[in-house]
Amino acid sequence: MNIDELAKGIVAGERRALARGITLVESSREDHRAQATALLAALPKDREALRIGLSGTPGVGKSTFIESFGMMLIQRGLRVAVLAIDPSSSRSGGSILGDKTRMDLLSREKAAFIRPSPSQTHLGGVARRTREAVTLCEAAGFDVVLIETVGVGQSETVVSEMSDLFLLLLAPAGGDELQGVKRGIMEMADIIVVNKADGDLKPAASRTCADYAGALRLLRKRPQDPDGFPKAMMVSALEENGLSEAWDEMQTLTDWRRAEGFWDRTRAAQARYWFEQSVKQELLAQLETPTAKAELKTLGDRVARGQEDPTKAAQDFIKQLDR
Amino acid sequence: MNIDELAKGIVAGERRALARGITLVESSREDHRAQATALLAALPKDREALRIGLSGTPGVGKSTFIESFGMMLIQRGLRVAVLAIDPSSSRSGGSILGDKTRMDLLSREKAAFIRPSPSQTHLGGVARRTREAVTLCEAAGFDVVLIETVGVGQSETVVSEMSDLFLLLLAPAGGDELQGVKRGIMEMADIIVVNKADGDLKPAASRTCADYAGALRLLRKRPQDPDGFPKAMMVSALEENGLSEAWDEMQTLTDWRRAEGFWDRTRAAQARYWFEQSVKQELLAQLETPTAKAELKTLGDRVARGQEDPTKAAQDFIKQLDR
Repeated sequence: MNIDELAKGIVAGERRALARGITLVESSREDHRAQATALLAALPKDREALRIGLSGTPGVGKSTFIESFGMMLIQRGLRVAVLAIDPSSSRSGGSILGDKTRMDLLSREKAAFIRPSPSQTHLGGVARRTREAVTLCEAAGFDVVLIETVGVGQSETVVSEMSDLFLLLLAPAGGDELQGVKRGIMEMADIIVVNKADGDLKPAASRTCADYAGALRLLRKRPQDPDGFPKAMMVSALEENGLSEAWDEMQTLTDWRRAEGFWDRTRAAQARYWFEQSVKQELLAQLETPTAKAELKTLGDRVARGQEDPTKAAQDFIKQLDR
Repeated sequence: MNIDELAKGIVAGERRALARGITLVESSREDHRAQATALLAALPKDREALRIGLSGTPGVGKSTFIESFGMMLIQRGLRVAVLAIDPSSSRSGGSILGDKTRMDLLSREKAAFIRPSPSQTHLGGVARRTREAVTLCEAAGFDVVLIETVGVGQSETVVSEMSDLFLLLLAPAGGDELQGVKRGIMEMADIIVVNKADGDLKPAASRTCADYAGALRLLRKRPQDPDGFPKAMMVSALEENGLSEAWDEMQTLTDWRRAEGFWDRTRAAQARYWFEQSVKQELLAQLETPTAKAELKTLGDRVARGQEDPTKAAQDFIKQLDR
């Protein structure tokens, strides 16, 4: 594969080149990994999309939100990429983005690019691949990159480490269900978006929105927030209500963060984070070769039978690895 | 240092040898690490203590419980070692075991051995050292090893991975505070012990105990539990009430687990776990040398400034490490 050609194609905004590039970064074959690294290094670093992390448990209407919100952005002349992190997708096959037909309109738009979650059970692997895919989408000139994930704990942290702002999508709920959202995830959110503010659910949406607005006020003020943020707001993705307002809020927030230097500082810290994560992953990858796995099993069996001390066995294993 | 002599001293139950052995496993000096590994390998593997993990947030009366419970065991002719895992101890100096005077009676008993948490901020390091100290205490012929930790999340998991049974110590509370205990920690507990069932607090202790008994019944049945376990019970460490009953329950539980094979299976799985953890820690320890840290900083700065891609920089770093 000619990496320079591929890089040129991506920079020219060619969909096929972008798709091939993402396939390359998703591969775990060693030669592909080397090519992917060369590709990432060959891309210009001067293009920046707004990276929006989006979390929400199944049932909150995430696909509908992405479809309506994405279409609105396209109508404003913006190009939108949608990526996903779903550590469970390889098992359940249940990533919402596995089924593009659920974003019927958006998937047919030339200005949109939708890519399902890489299928890997290991969150670290999914995270690295998605982060690299974000880089490719930026180089391809997309204005907005949406990175969605299901609300399953760790994956939110991963998404927030590659996003400029983080949306938490919720459905209207009874007043006592507020504690269902983990505090750690609440603390990540820049904007809490209560979806389904339509029809019968409208009063419940109002109440849920007010509850979360109250809960957000109780959280410690973060330096990267202007007055009034983080905030809770209502939308109806179905009736396309509140989406422009949500976009306005996102722009207000990011404009402020750019002006105050938080944008650059956050991106710098994130890059450093991914560098350090990659170093750790590369080191631990030595344990994933067939030889290493077999040896770990053999030594582990001896340790489990009490024939060897865990510490001693670990040091013997490391010595073998260095040979 | 003569490792064989030291091993003999420990096996003979000499306190000074045991203390020196623990100091050795706690050291991070490279020559000490090699000696510690040799010491662990030199110890006989046929001595087994009952390892009891004990978790409880500050204020539940953990020191008082350990003191009263430990004294009761000693009166029954048993030898008791008390170890601790407190990942915060190096920062706050606040490990309860840092201050032996809070276990005044126990610390003066010949049949007791109390050792504060190794002072390390890194939980992985504290965990390895404490696990190795447990091994030394077993070789020294202690009948019971209590491993205590404060309720700060991850450290409970670490303690439960080196314990035969796990106690969660709680104080009486208002009925709506039940959710203060994380579900994950509840699920680890074999026995929930509500302390301070004395004086004015007795009715509240009853209520709390009943609440937790109810909550435990809602959890999925675990294969390693006989009927009636996990269970909640009340004690007063201050008035020395309920401690014998608690000890009886622990023995009922461990007798059953031994008879059904769960004891051996759990110990085997734990040994394998620590072996695999040690392998990972040894690999990642390569990042802790002064040279590696300096290089990580330099490359990390370049990545943060956008001069290099995180993935590429990570691979370059690994290549340097291998040279």
